[in-house]
Amino acid sequence: MTIIDGKKVSADIKAEIAREVEARVAEGKRRPHLAAILVGHDGGSETYVAHKVKACEECGFKSTLIRFESTEDAPLDPAELMATIEKLNADPDVDGFIVQLPLPKHIDEQAVIEAVLPEKDVDGFHPVNVGKQSIGLPCFHSATPAGIVELLRRYDIPTRGKRVVIVGRSNIVGKPLAAMLMQKAQPGDATVTVCHSATEDLADICREADILVAALGRPGFITADMVKPGATVIDVGTTRVADATRKSGFRLRGDVDYDAVSPKCSFITPVPGGVGPMTICSLMQNTLQAARAKD
Amino acid sequence: MTIIDGKKVSADIKAEIAREVEARVAEGKRRPHLAAILVGHDGGSETYVAHKVKACEECGFKSTLIRFESTEDAPLDPAELMATIEKLNADPDVDGFIVQLPLPKHIDEQAVIEAVLPEKDVDGFHPVNVGKQSIGLPCFHSATPAGIVELLRRYDIPTRGKRVVIVGRSNIVGKPLAAMLMQKAQPGDATVTVCHSATEDLADICREADILVAALGRPGFITADMVKPGATVIDVGTTRVADATRKSGFRLRGDVDYDAVSPKCSFITPVPGGVGPMTICSLMQNTLQAARAKD
Repeated sequence: MTIIDGKKVSADIKAEIAREVEARVAEGKRRPHLAAILVGHDGGSETYVAHKVKACEECGFKSTLIRFESTEDAPLDPAELMATIEKLNADPDVDGFIVQLPLPKHIDEQAVIEAVLPEKDVDGFHPVNVGKQSIGLPCFHSATPAGIVELLRRYDIPTRGKRVVIVGRSNIVGKPLAAMLMQKAQPGDATVTVCHSATEDLADICREADILVAALGRPGFITADMVKPGATVIDVGTTRVADATRKSGFRLRGDVDYDAVSPKCSFITPVPGGVGPMTICSLMQNTLQAARAKD
Repeated sequence: MTIIDGKKVSADIKAEIAREVEARVAEGKRRPHLAAILVGHDGGSETYVAHKVKACEECGFKSTLIRFESTEDAPLDPAELMATIEKLNADPDVDGFIVQLPLPKHIDEQAVIEAVLPEKDVDGFHPVNVGKQSIGLPCFHSATPAGIVELLRRYDIPTRGKRVVIVGRSNIVGKPLAAMLMQKAQPGDATVTVCHSATEDLADICREADILVAALGRPGFITADMVKPGATVIDVGTTRVADATRKSGFRLRGDVDYDAVSPKCSFITPVPGGVGPMTICSLMQNTLQAARAKD
């Protein structure tokens, strides 16, 4: 059994990106520039955005963090957010930008996603990028699915003709990952099944998987009896569960019962340190791609 | 075993649309207006476009057919086609329009698809509509998948939690149908698997299907041993095979070995007269939807 080391792969990719950036700068080109908009003080979002800023530094990118306060008493005016998005859309110095989700409930998240210029949508959330990804055209791929595909590529895990079962049909993981892995591509060319809350005989279907992807957000949901011996298991879950022994008061738990499942696998991603670090990595790759597109 | 009568369902829907159109006209509203662009004289395309014009009449729509000649000696200038698309995009009297595919090889089909304003893209081929369909947002659904979903709805064939196996991953049938049937919707909420040329153990996977959709374009490919007793079988294939006994010199054959498969099914679509008539019906529904959106 091989533990897929997302932390190491992520560090490798960031080093590769940094080398390309330095070569670009040596040629007189601008550093890629990623901007992030953060609304309010959601704990998870603060952490993610901090990680993104740090990753920009590691890759030699310029980064800008734009913060908006928003409380129940003084909610952010959505028009103010939209005006900032328009400014970033128009700013030739910004290659790509993200609006960290989730947003406060009074803001229409989908309208915000669609306001981002597709050419700067390095999260790959705009319908144009989602559609192009499904059709198989060049686009910004959703960050988490792209990170998973990169792990499969770097660990030489065959996908062609293999059965991939994805548990969870979210718009940011399950659906776009299915779209990527069913394309005539390498990695890709897989026979993909998407399962969800309405699926009957879920355990049976999971046992058919050569590659089982858990992305439903229920800690420990995938048990050993649901996994075919020798399968590759990709755990996308990152649920915060209370842990009094940690300084933070919580720890991350995946969707897979790791201790019971891992002995049966050929490959498995741990939580943390598996898929997680790859998501930010994909964001960096998308930002570099956006910068290259302007060459 | 029930033979799904696409011709009858299609006639019913067109009659429903015609009633709504007459009610709209009685309220002083414009008739929905569908325009079609046809380049060259491909036999299949001529037939499809003629059927679309006829369906517009049946629904009480206004229709416009714009023809361009294009031969090897005198190929159509793509700029001329693009200028016409721009004109239709801007014309407030046109609710929706289609460019009949395939186009001559010298014209970039994807560029043409992306030139159509998404709000008038009643074929549902623009990446924005493909993306919205995947996300589960209101949009123009691809015509053939929407027709299949409509058949499942009208025949009360349960999809929730059921296993759907789609053979074929084309951008106009397999992928968008998968997207529609995995949505939290009714019909929908199915556990969908997409198979294709690289799939291993295809027959085994097909036998798992409660609803088996054949959309690969290989006449008679789905044989009786690939079908679970009691399954619903949807045949999207329409390959022209030579038939000297017909005036046209050909007949349409589906992807399913109908005579051997049909006795095992609970429901099956024939070819012709199954999915085929529904595709044009969906186009009419999309055009009506486009007209309504302007109310």
